[in-house]
Amino acid sequence: MSWLDEVPWGKDGMITAVAQDAASGRILMVAWMNREALEQTVARKQAVYWSRSRKRLWHKGEESGHVQKVLEVRLDCDADAVLLKVEQVAGIACHTGRESCFFRKLEDGRWMSTDPVLKDPKLIYKDR
Amino acid sequence: MSWLDEVPWGKDGMITAVAQDAASGRILMVAWMNREALEQTVARKQAVYWSRSRKRLWHKGEESGHVQKVLEVRLDCDADAVLLKVEQVAGIACHTGRESCFFRKLEDGRWMSTDPVLKDPKLIYKDR
Repeated sequence: MSWLDEVPWGKDGMITAVAQDAASGRILMVAWMNREALEQTVARKQAVYWSRSRKRLWHKGEESGHVQKVLEVRLDCDADAVLLKVEQVAGIACHTGRESCFFRKLEDGRWMSTDPVLKDPKLIYKDR
Repeated sequence: MSWLDEVPWGKDGMITAVAQDAASGRILMVAWMNREALEQTVARKQAVYWSRSRKRLWHKGEESGHVQKVLEVRLDCDADAVLLKVEQVAGIACHTGRESCFFRKLEDGRWMSTDPVLKDPKLIYKDR
């Protein structure tokens, strides 16, 4: 597929993927994609990343149920990063139970957790 | 500085940096930072990245004048990505003269340029 060939898959075969909530504009998370992840993301219209820790494709929400419905995919000028505009199911992207993984803000030389935990991670992952 | 030590600088010493326009919420660009880049970004309150192509610190806007004034810095849950909320001088982040580097959108299997060029790059870089 030619649109996939426009990405220079580089030596490690990875690009950066940023997920943004389409409604609020909030940045939810940053993750990685290889060619297959991007292909599946577009085919399924749900975010599929490459998990560097698990070394396998990671259908976001496969355990938590918190899938990301992909409404739009954008590519940057040097084609090594994609931006997904998503509808975040349950409004929780982070494994800590928060809306966004970027829940810490630098204030006076300290990273302060500014965002509430919306659901206890124990409850998110208990039945899965 | 302890807030810098909370980032696991990894084997290549890099983290991902996402710049978001604080007013519009638009994602402007994705780049890289090493420890020194992040330290300088916070100290100068302007975005300083690590240029992988030039292999040196890159004060965003040093050539174009299109600096990014940093209003907020956020860290993600696994501390390998930072989000900068910025005021983008001239409203142009991309070297192509567009607001955002993410000016291509996937439509029917093709990357379509959806965003206008706000200023000719020849004019942006001519005197520098």
